[in-house]
Amino acid sequence: MVKQIAERLQHLREQRPLVHNITNFVVMNNTANALLALGASPVMVHSPREVKEVVAMSNALLINIGTLSEEWASSMCAAAEYAHRIGRPWILDPVGAGISAFRNEVLQELLRYRPTVIRGNASEIIALSDFALSGGKGVDSTAGSAQASASGHQLQKTSGAQVCISGEVDYVIGEQRSVSIHNGSPMMTKVTGLGCTSSAIIAAFIAQGDDPFLEALAGVSVCSLAGELAARQSSGPGSLQKNLYDTLYNLSEVEISTHLNIKEYVH
Amino acid sequence: MVKQIAERLQHLREQRPLVHNITNFVVMNNTANALLALGASPVMVHSPREVKEVVAMSNALLINIGTLSEEWASSMCAAAEYAHRIGRPWILDPVGAGISAFRNEVLQELLRYRPTVIRGNASEIIALSDFALSGGKGVDSTAGSAQASASGHQLQKTSGAQVCISGEVDYVIGEQRSVSIHNGSPMMTKVTGLGCTSSAIIAAFIAQGDDPFLEALAGVSVCSLAGELAARQSSGPGSLQKNLYDTLYNLSEVEISTHLNIKEYVH
Amino acid sequence: MVKQIAERLQHLREQRPLVHNITNFVVMNNTANALLALGASPVMVHSPREVKEVVAMSNALLINIGTLSEEWASSMCAAAEYAHRIGRPWILDPVGAGISAFRNEVLQELLRYRPTVIRGNASEIIALSDFALSGGKGVDSTAGSAQASASGHQLQKTSGAQVCISGEVDYVIGEQRSVSIHNGSPMMTKVTGLGCTSSAIIAAFIAQGDDPFLEALAGVSVCSLAGELAARQSSGPGSLQKNLYDTLYNLSEVEISTHLNIKEYVH
Repeated sequence: MVKQIAERLQHLREQRPLVHNITNFVVMNNTANALLALGASPVMVHSPREVKEVVAMSNALLINIGTLSEEWASSMCAAAEYAHRIGRPWILDPVGAGISAFRNEVLQELLRYRPTVIRGNASEIIALSDFALSGGKGVDSTAGSAQASASGHQLQKTSGAQVCISGEVDYVIGEQRSVSIHNGSPMMTKVTGLGCTSSAIIAAFIAQGDDPFLEALAGVSVCSLAGELAARQSSGPGSLQKNLYDTLYNLSEVEISTHLNIKEYVH
Repeated sequence: MVKQIAERLQHLREQRPLVHNITNFVVMNNTANALLALGASPVMVHSPREVKEVVAMSNALLINIGTLSEEWASSMCAAAEYAHRIGRPWILDPVGAGISAFRNEVLQELLRYRPTVIRGNASEIIALSDFALSGGKGVDSTAGSAQASASGHQLQKTSGAQVCISGEVDYVIGEQRSVSIHNGSPMMTKVTGLGCTSSAIIAAFIAQGDDPFLEALAGVSVCSLAGELAARQSSGPGSLQKNLYDTLYNLSEVEISTHLNIKEYVH
Repeated sequence: MVKQIAERLQHLREQRPLVHNITNFVVMNNTANALLALGASPVMVHSPREVKEVVAMSNALLINIGTLSEEWASSMCAAAEYAHRIGRPWILDPVGAGISAFRNEVLQELLRYRPTVIRGNASEIIALSDFALSGGKGVDSTAGSAQASASGHQLQKTSGAQVCISGEVDYVIGEQRSVSIHNGSPMMTKVTGLGCTSSAIIAAFIAQGDDPFLEALAGVSVCSLAGELAARQSSGPGSLQKNLYDTLYNLSEVEISTHLNIKEYVH
């Protein structure tokens, strides 16, 4: 699988997919930069007057509900509905799932449009699976990603999506296969929006559109590995953010095959 | 007092307070990163559909009116009103006070909800104290922070808040005590939103909730000192922004006791 | 002309123009930082309740339609109309021109308020000149800037604006003179919003208000040259972003006269 991930990255860099982002104000700049460094092409458009046109011209869609409002929620739903209708791959990042009734309602509608992938931290995946108020502490996770694994499997079944859980260990859960990713760095939790960045990178991979499980896995793997390699040369989170873009830009097949540490596990 | 500031920072890192930010589009990313580097946990939520739920689950609230609009103003007022009602500490950053009648109206309503702390530059503090149109040049300050000291004392009395004035010298003005902080660097004015960052850091300290004057002082001190230490190793404002996060992340008790230069003064 | 550009930069640093930005969410932070590093003073205000007051107090206005919505479009039009009425120089950055009917309508209204300068990539300039749906791939350009030169000349005639086209080679097209700028670096396309940054820098120059062609040329030249010099010491786009601010902050007359490579050409 490691070799396939490296090939997918090579393919992404040749294809330069256009990724439509309807995301939160905090990370817009970062995710655009991560996509460019990776080799993809980001577009950020959210007006209901033009989201359909942009979904149609893009290769994949990312919906991230971080700084949600009613206006943005209707754009998100319109875009997701249209992506679903025309068969465009899309990923849902359910930031802060469970922290309010409003957020849960919007998520419930979004799930109807059958995201190709869902990526969140442990608290978010548990909340999304339960739709009960989680013990989540804001938008950072209080549950471990291993704890969320059972919820992730349940969410995979009910949603049909590939489910990715970020944490000390990352998980990618598909219908028939699941993989844990043992890369990353604790310092990554000290840079805002690296989970959102992981979702954006996954979006660039699912643009390939022929093996969503492998594509989601490639996205999570590339982000966590790049973060780990970047953290090794960083004296703090400011350096890490800068080095992450440089690492994404330069990440080689050799680095992937040398350092990527993933394990398939049986359901 | 220097020793108490270092202890407060240590306490903050153990407590990891959740800080609710309703802030401007320009600095959202930066203030989230500053809070994470410091050891706090940021959450950015602004919809009137969920601000109360997030105020309730957070340890402190920051309201920064930089990129104000009518929609955001009503969210800010709802959040501030609720924080006041349930006794949650909150800080007001009156960006651009005095530049328009609209902004002054919103500030007037916000002041009714009794902020724990107000932090601004000299022009903003003067304008807020006067509510006359200031000689402010946009959002950067044209008055010196020393000039604003008299206005700051007046504002302290009328608002009941701890008043912090940023500038070449910073001031923290309480009911019975006032302190000037002689740290920072002129290069800090060449990075956008370091005043906003100072407010966010103060928000993380007032979450402790038992000595607002000392907490405001700790926030201003940590930000200005970290900026000064970061600027020493920076060849320009790009480096400074990166180094600021690294410095906040690594700031030690020894650095605080060696370099922090504060002076109490009599009213 | 190179000497005049260096003098204009010197003048800008002494004058510290206040630049009013109504721009997109992705680049707000970056353009504020670029303006500060350059020596200008940015203000970001977009509410219809106060845009006129801020246009009136500013020395120049930037309108960038990146993350357009109906609410923001009416603020943009109100600000541009007012800038036109009171004779305030303003620049239009038509991000994503041609990707939707909505965007084209808004651009058509904005053009009525006679921007001093228009800056876009090749696809955007072609679309703006045609107002037909372009072959544009989102907001990154698919056409070369040389290809767009004919469209740029046509747009110059119909709009009366100085037209700047960004690409491998940049063009600044005036009524009587045109110049190509042979600086920059391919790595600049891997950092989000460096085109938007170029527009912001132009805005700071047109605040001088006595020779829009030369001022637009100075803005494009300074941005492309700073990007080139910054890229030389950057191992990837994360470093480039940081180094760009440091370079803008330190850019000297000697560097401009040594490295700036511009050519006047006959229409």
